[in-house]
Amino acid sequence: MRPTVRQVAELANVSVATVSYVLSGRDRPVAAKTRQRVLDAARQLGYTPNQAARSLRKRRTQRVCLVLSTFGGVPSDERLAMDLHEMADARGYSVVTLAVYSEARASAAVDMLRGGIADGALINVVGDHLAHDLLAGLAATGLPMVVLSNESGLAGCDLVRTPEAEASAEAVEHLLAQGRRRIAFMAHRHELYRDKPVGRLLGYTSALDRHGVDQRIVTSGADDRVAAYQTASELLRSPDRPDAIFAASDRAALSAIWAARDLGLSVPGDVSIVGSGNIDEGLISNPQLSTVGPLRHDYTDVVRMLFDRLQAEEPPPAREIVRSWTFVRRGSS
Amino acid sequence: MRPTVRQVAELANVSVATVSYVLSGRDRPVAAKTRQRVLDAARQLGYTPNQAARSLRKRRTQRVCLVLSTFGGVPSDERLAMDLHEMADARGYSVVTLAVYSEARASAAVDMLRGGIADGALINVVGDHLAHDLLAGLAATGLPMVVLSNESGLAGCDLVRTPEAEASAEAVEHLLAQGRRRIAFMAHRHELYRDKPVGRLLGYTSALDRHGVDQRIVTSGADDRVAAYQTASELLRSPDRPDAIFAASDRAALSAIWAARDLGLSVPGDVSIVGSGNIDEGLISNPQLSTVGPLRHDYTDVVRMLFDRLQAEEPPPAREIVRSWTFVRRGSS
Repeated sequence: MRPTVRQVAELANVSVATVSYVLSGRDRPVAAKTRQRVLDAARQLGYTPNQAARSLRKRRTQRVCLVLSTFGGVPSDERLAMDLHEMADARGYSVVTLAVYSEARASAAVDMLRGGIADGALINVVGDHLAHDLLAGLAATGLPMVVLSNESGLAGCDLVRTPEAEASAEAVEHLLAQGRRRIAFMAHRHELYRDKPVGRLLGYTSALDRHGVDQRIVTSGADDRVAAYQTASELLRSPDRPDAIFAASDRAALSAIWAARDLGLSVPGDVSIVGSGNIDEGLISNPQLSTVGPLRHDYTDVVRMLFDRLQAEEPPPAREIVRSWTFVRRGSS
Repeated sequence: MRPTVRQVAELANVSVATVSYVLSGRDRPVAAKTRQRVLDAARQLGYTPNQAARSLRKRRTQRVCLVLSTFGGVPSDERLAMDLHEMADARGYSVVTLAVYSEARASAAVDMLRGGIADGALINVVGDHLAHDLLAGLAATGLPMVVLSNESGLAGCDLVRTPEAEASAEAVEHLLAQGRRRIAFMAHRHELYRDKPVGRLLGYTSALDRHGVDQRIVTSGADDRVAAYQTASELLRSPDRPDAIFAASDRAALSAIWAARDLGLSVPGDVSIVGSGNIDEGLISNPQLSTVGPLRHDYTDVVRMLFDRLQAEEPPPAREIVRSWTFVRRGSS
């Protein structure tokens, strides 16, 4: 016999109404702990909120929601937004965008999505503002969702993985193979505030670990061209300057190239420079920028997963895409 | 005697319900022509939809909407978004962002705002996608609105003017005073597709007109750093290369500096370069970038107008801010 909402309520020790609020995604504040208890109970009993999911799917706004970390300035986010808007145009959907740069913003975004601001969501939030249980709770409401994340254990939505750590390690190994030993990493802020390294920073540290190189030079600067120029200038003016810079963004790497040129240093002679992201601008720098990133900037496969979900009669099985990332060697290294 | 909604309906030759839909901003599609007829009739009779405006103001979503032209990449939009988000945070409001880059998107955005997606809107749409009558119709619904626009005749909302044309003319006159005569202008796409020049392009043409300089060299490129680099390289490689480049964005002007350096040309010796926007990155280029733009990047006064409107009991009188723009001379000219 299928479990009922009443059984979920009893197990979670809450009212049926609360279960309904949590699982239906209606716009009603429920404490995070209570919500988690309801979600745990539902999972334990195998309760699938079909009805809630159906009602959510029926309440068509003809809108999709793009959830990003910033207000702009990140080239891959702009490309993702462009592909989403174009494909939404073709399907008669509007797009609303939410910026999630703090825990308060994350919780507000989840509330808006639970409240039905859009029929589905494409979520690319870096850092840890958007906690795993918030995302899991949202997916459990039946909202069609595609999430760009390398974290594990998220059920009920499609996932897009990016093997950044692996490609970044390859870049650092390339620098090591050239004999570089003082390799600096210019990080995004969100990479510095993690308990343990992930993504590009993890690639950097693990490659150095594997090759027994002890020296770590980790700075901020990858979020901002001006900060990157200043950071790179300081690094390159110091008496024990790095012989290579690996930046977590191409924008920062390009600033590092200009900083080196302005100091009269040759790239890659005096300092090798590698970026991340593979943006077109890497082709107009002098020398051209070595980078890790996707070979093609195209999120249509990612966006298509969202519209597949939106247009499905019944929730389709969760899918996973691995975006191809690779090291692209050019003149700067 | 005050005019009634019935009189508006009779004059517009539509049903009372249609008048109510149009003036209340409820989520119901009304043909653009019909909507305009209703708005004209309301204006003619002096009908103010107080009730509709009140109900809109009452239907609090605790959200404000930011309407922009692009998906990012425009530094001033990022700054505007940052100030809006920060001030919204402090007041317990969420922010949803809409990108309006086509007429279809403009009309969808207006429909969403009429449908009550947010309690108020901050609108900065360049080009002519968001037609004047759409904006006027939206303001007539009583939705609290602040619009960044130099166009005239928009009633019922606050306006933010930017004297770009004047500051741009000053920059071009500075180049003329230096003896430059072959002055190229790198435009945004939206500036090229207008019937007559406005803003920065108007400043360029009017300064040249005033000084009897006939030559006009107008290219695209201001939207994109890569396009700007390529365009500047072509201009500077030509046998009759310009002796000055005035770019409608600092990003394009910075690309032009790199293009000149990569061609072995001195800036400003061989070519003077001036940008627009006064972004911080102009201080890390070599030479530092001359530019036109605001001295301070701060939209808090603009955002405050929106929250003043949102928090007012009765619609306040329309206000107008003129943002200060000026020519800032640095090393590149």
